Amino acid sequence: MELLVTYDVDTTTPAGRRRLRQVAKICESYGIRVQKSVFEIVCTDADWITMRHRLLDIISTEHDSIRIYTLHRGTLDTAQHLGHSPPAPHHDPLIY
Amino acid sequence: MELLVTYDVDTTTPAGRRRLRQVAKICESYGIRVQKSVFEIVCTDADWITMRHRLLDIISTEHDSIRIYTLHRGTLDTAQHLGHSPPAPHHDPLIY
Repeated sequence: MELLVTYDVDTTTPAGRRRLRQVAKICESYGIRVQKSVFEIVCTDADWITMRHRLLDIISTEHDSIRIYTLHRGTLDTAQHLGHSPPAPHHDPLIY
Repeated sequence: MELLVTYDVDTTTPAGRRRLRQVAKICESYGIRVQKSVFEIVCTDADWITMRHRLLDIISTEHDSIRIYTLHRGTLDTAQHLGHSPPAPHHDPLIY
């Protein structure tokens, strides 16, 4: 499945800044960061269930918000980018 | 068409903070802010062409980035929200 994950984490406290790092770390383990708080994720349904639990364990539901868009296949490849550092598309062969 | 617009504007300078306000103002005139720099937009193709031009006139392509996802109809209504202040869905009757 293709997901777009966007988040606002309250960074006015040290605890909030720690939550921000943890949320980013989780998202990075599943997908590609395309902007500061925007991740493109291609994963299985099971991955998403696990990821969702991990995110809910971390965020403060009173101060933070995460939005998750379940996209039709191919949507991520059609994203338009205005401005600097467009990310590499998902389906590029990874070079080792 | 349904769009998701996300942006990162460099706010380390007064000029950048002004660009941020202008980008947000343009997005607000076309859709709903769902997070600090995430907008959900339901508009015509013509609207999108105009909006794109206006955004390109404002941003610094060297310092800022805007990503635009063209979504399949109905995607916005299926968005999941974790945490505080979930926005009202698009198709709610507006109460005057």
